Amino acid sequence: MKARVRVTLKSGVLDPQGSAIAEALHRLGHANVANVRQGKFIELDLEEPDPTKAKAQVEAMCRDLFVNPVIETYAVEIS
Amino acid sequence: MKARVRVTLKSGVLDPQGSAIAEALHRLGHANVANVRQGKFIELDLEEPDPTKAKAQVEAMCRDLFVNPVIETYAVEIS
Repeated sequence: MKARVRVTLKSGVLDPQGSAIAEALHRLGHANVANVRQGKFIELDLEEPDPTKAKAQVEAMCRDLFVNPVIETYAVEIS
Repeated sequence: MKARVRVTLKSGVLDPQGSAIAEALHRLGHANVANVRQGKFIELDLEEPDPTKAKAQVEAMCRDLFVNPVIETYAVEIS
């Protein structure tokens, strides 16, 4: 199975990278943009035929390695 | 509209971050993991009611700012 993980800062946590991107977009003429947030994206292949088990395993990886639960949140997609 | 952009290295481009993550996962006991790739994830709000126009605008942002087309590729999701 293929897994896709999005790791983003929790809402309320200051995101200086996102703010810098928003400022750059405004300078480039994209005035109608707001609330820009930057996060991480991780894609991986998993040798696990059962989607439920695969999702549980990827969630364990998030807790073990990918995510700082104090400031970050995540979403897992299995396909 | 809300836009989500995934920016990933093209396949064939060496991804040292992804390799480091794969090694760490193997050390942590996730032996069934392969082809780990790390990318960027950008989320933003767009004041544009038309999804087609919104997507075209976000694709322009990708070309202008988010993506290095030599080594990276992107996917845009509008919701």
